Amino acid sequence: MKSPFDDTYFMKKALQEAEAAFDKGEIPVGAVIVANDRVIARAHNLTEMLNDVTAHAEMQAITAAANFLGGKYLNNCTMYVTLEPCQMCAGALYWSQISRVVYGASDKERGCVALNTKLHPKTKLEGGVMADEASQLLKRFFIEKRNLN
Amino acid sequence: MKSPFDDTYFMKKALQEAEAAFDKGEIPVGAVIVANDRVIARAHNLTEMLNDVTAHAEMQAITAAANFLGGKYLNNCTMYVTLEPCQMCAGALYWSQISRVVYGASDKERGCVALNTKLHPKTKLEGGVMADEASQLLKRFFIEKRNLN
Repeated sequence: MKSPFDDTYFMKKALQEAEAAFDKGEIPVGAVIVANDRVIARAHNLTEMLNDVTAHAEMQAITAAANFLGGKYLNNCTMYVTLEPCQMCAGALYWSQISRVVYGASDKERGCVALNTKLHPKTKLEGGVMADEASQLLKRFFIEKRNLN
Repeated sequence: MKSPFDDTYFMKKALQEAEAAFDKGEIPVGAVIVANDRVIARAHNLTEMLNDVTAHAEMQAITAAANFLGGKYLNNCTMYVTLEPCQMCAGALYWSQISRVVYGASDKERGCVALNTKLHPKTKLEGGVMADEASQLLKRFFIEKRNLN
């Protein structure tokens, strides 16, 4: 029997976080961190509300997961994030030594793949999981924002 | 008359922060952010104490400076940091649009110059200010750490 806990299952949780960001007027990006099929951290972008460029979903999730685990290394953890991490977040993931990062939509301009940010040798990176859903939410955000201005 | 507020003056403040990190058993890196010849944020590495890979001196200083200014962009600010910023911190500096970053010692392995991290077009990066002092403090830290283990 197929486990219900596949990449799509957890990416949906990350998308729920992205929707929570959307509802607050934040660029809709969400992330969860999973260990042993359990979500140990969830976060969404809060850069506007906190007036802080470092408050990306991934950064907050890394801090929360380390807090949950009582240690700063995220070995045996997977991050699901709706958008390809930027240099800052990929740099933080490098230090965390996380085992796996799964992202949804690509960011051809500011993403870590596009900008060739170095990940830890222990980290596997995969993209394209529920990319359309993540991408549609971002597009909807920017269209609504344009129409308001 | 030469202004007392030159790069060396502010790098000394960053070095004081690095020494505070040293005294706490943290890898000794310190940072200050300056606007109009005034230090508006100061921080030192706290990754061990906070169990958080994101708690680099630069990250905390960026958050503190934005909080002080009431806005997330650090235009017309200069960061002084004792060690060349890593990918994560350079990535955060990219988002902050900071005007200038001055560092002390180089980090040939994990620094943003070595790893070619993209900075914002508005940002000028300069290195080598009080590099020996910053480097000596780091060396002393790692020697003492080795001797304790």
